[in-house]
Amino acid sequence: MSLIPPSRVFPPPERLLLGPGPSQVHPRVLAALGLPLVGHLDPAFVALMEETKRMLREVFGTKNDLTIPISGTGSAGLEATIVNLVEPGDEVVIGVNGVFGTRLTDVAERAGASVVRAEAPWGEVVPPETIAAALGRARKPRLLALVHAETSTGAWQPLEEASRLAHEHGALFVIDCVTSLGGCPVDIDRMGVDAAYSGTQKCLSCPPGLSPVTFGPRAVERLRARTHQVRSWYLDLTMLEKYWGEERVYHHTAPISMNYALYEALRVVLEEGLDARFARHRRSHEALVAGLEALGLEMAVAPGRRLWMLTSVRIPAGVDDAAVRRALLEDDHIEIGGGLGPLKGQTWRIGLMGESSTEANVRRLLSALGRLLPRHGFACDAESGVAAAGRAYGAA
Amino acid sequence: MSLIPPSRVFPPPERLLLGPGPSQVHPRVLAALGLPLVGHLDPAFVALMEETKRMLREVFGTKNDLTIPISGTGSAGLEATIVNLVEPGDEVVIGVNGVFGTRLTDVAERAGASVVRAEAPWGEVVPPETIAAALGRARKPRLLALVHAETSTGAWQPLEEASRLAHEHGALFVIDCVTSLGGCPVDIDRMGVDAAYSGTQKCLSCPPGLSPVTFGPRAVERLRARTHQVRSWYLDLTMLEKYWGEERVYHHTAPISMNYALYEALRVVLEEGLDARFARHRRSHEALVAGLEALGLEMAVAPGRRLWMLTSVRIPAGVDDAAVRRALLEDDHIEIGGGLGPLKGQTWRIGLMGESSTEANVRRLLSALGRLLPRHGFACDAESGVAAAGRAYGAA
Repeated sequence: MSLIPPSRVFPPPERLLLGPGPSQVHPRVLAALGLPLVGHLDPAFVALMEETKRMLREVFGTKNDLTIPISGTGSAGLEATIVNLVEPGDEVVIGVNGVFGTRLTDVAERAGASVVRAEAPWGEVVPPETIAAALGRARKPRLLALVHAETSTGAWQPLEEASRLAHEHGALFVIDCVTSLGGCPVDIDRMGVDAAYSGTQKCLSCPPGLSPVTFGPRAVERLRARTHQVRSWYLDLTMLEKYWGEERVYHHTAPISMNYALYEALRVVLEEGLDARFARHRRSHEALVAGLEALGLEMAVAPGRRLWMLTSVRIPAGVDDAAVRRALLEDDHIEIGGGLGPLKGQTWRIGLMGESSTEANVRRLLSALGRLLPRHGFACDAESGVAAAGRAYGAA
Repeated sequence: MSLIPPSRVFPPPERLLLGPGPSQVHPRVLAALGLPLVGHLDPAFVALMEETKRMLREVFGTKNDLTIPISGTGSAGLEATIVNLVEPGDEVVIGVNGVFGTRLTDVAERAGASVVRAEAPWGEVVPPETIAAALGRARKPRLLALVHAETSTGAWQPLEEASRLAHEHGALFVIDCVTSLGGCPVDIDRMGVDAAYSGTQKCLSCPPGLSPVTFGPRAVERLRARTHQVRSWYLDLTMLEKYWGEERVYHHTAPISMNYALYEALRVVLEEGLDARFARHRRSHEALVAGLEALGLEMAVAPGRRLWMLTSVRIPAGVDDAAVRRALLEDDHIEIGGGLGPLKGQTWRIGLMGESSTEANVRRLLSALGRLLPRHGFACDAESGVAAAGRAYGAA
């Protein structure tokens, strides 16, 4: 029976997930994943689809009918949003200040769009003047897309002014809220967002595999007014809305178990309450920053622009990025992320997303880092880091 | 807390899944789904990716390096296969004898291809003469695509002659084996298949959500020789092969839990052994047919063309399709499928896929149907159906 592989990969090692996602998953969500399956047209599954849409609307802060999970990861939601709104030859304006803005330009170009970039350095946000100038360079911008929470850098993009600018130019306002949804206010309707996509494995604390999207009235109107068929069959919202709508027209077979998980994850989110959840993310972030600074580390993003759920910290000169992360993973069973693109080797990315965002996890990470860094050439005192975090929690 | 929905959808009702998929999932696979997560770049997950590729190659019957699960359902695998092989303006020949051949034409047209249809009536297979004629009508066919197991009708498409014809015309040979993989021989290499895609929720008995694909040397050569970028970023195999390859270049975040499930499902498949598994599917199918015929029902597909894992049976005149399926589901907790397209209201589709394909399940279905049909205007004797199936099992 040489065909059967060893079982050495199971069970997976215990990890504390403090990277850019996936985050820790609540035991109730793991239990939901393991429930026996029903068919995707079963009345029980249809009821679950309805409740999931209702809960997603609450979490997004929207009344949009077309609010559903796409059957793929966050990047599938990104692609779904773009290919449904863009037709060949359209001009689009995209904020580019990290990996995910760059990805948006790639997807938009493949969809046949002509892209105008509104650029900012990685780690900063795109200022309104840059956005206004880019919108001005386009003759008839179809949409403006911004990354609300740039997971590659930890920068928190403000939305209000950008929303106003987009609409002034007759453009749809689109946001990537993969990392922000469920961890800080997103407020789709209040912010005038026309379309948005997210992921399940960040602040919703569900495993990766689904991508909630929401399309508002103007975006739906655009969908109806298309003159070209959507280029992707799998991501075509004109069909997906009939599968997730009352018609239940067969499209694909929804991932049953992943939808069980999302349903339960959303229940956990709403039981905690959005405001309490946001406050928890903020508190953990502030305690983490206090602790990291007490260790002598520097933040990579300016105050006021830092995400609560993802903190980028500069790797001290002379410290070996990979060696520290490997030691954290192997010895302490803690995952944190490395930098991407121009920040590779320059930053660590610490995620405190959803279930991962707790005082105990902040203390455990600071304690491990404070013990580890001196062995990698950076003098610091673990106790002072943990104590500073504790004081920040106490003051909150 | 009016935001929190009732928990009435959980736990899901117990179902025996004998429809077109999902099929019953092995308890070991459900247990794998519920395991805590690791990161997608964790050495433990990388090891799981490697073992998964190795096991997928065994099940596909191929040595193809580029054999990976796409992070979406079977339809995402279909789209991935087409958009990676087709460039705008290419001519493609597609066998159309059901929903999934029709879907292939839709996806190919969206990818910019000009489609030549090799058509056959629903419920029949596409004969070699029709395939040869269609290939002859194309000037320079880029590929020939056929559906190995047409889930919408239950027809089993032979591959040998089609493979020879495709290659004679310089076309790649592509198959949809969503429903056949793991339930009957697919033999990618021996059949000269250049590219194929499947799903997890049929004979692999894993929940829906991933789509194994395999690309052989000629298909990879085509991928390298493209002059246009692949239209889909999410499904671009030139990037996915680097994420699943030794480079581990970040693309998207793989669905961790679903990959746990696929890993365990493949272990279950290979522990049983492919030949034993195929024989089990054949035996259950033959017993089911014997039982259904003993009840007085007629098969919708001619002998010799019937799939082992999906049996289409004609709904007797005067019997209410939906009422019978609803009663089966509500009273007996058994799911079977209805017909699609021109077969809607004409056929039932009974799936005996993977874990669903057992003698006990065949007996339970025949018993329920035999009891139910007389109440819906079709006289039959449940005992004779169950007995006929038992004799077929005994003779096998």
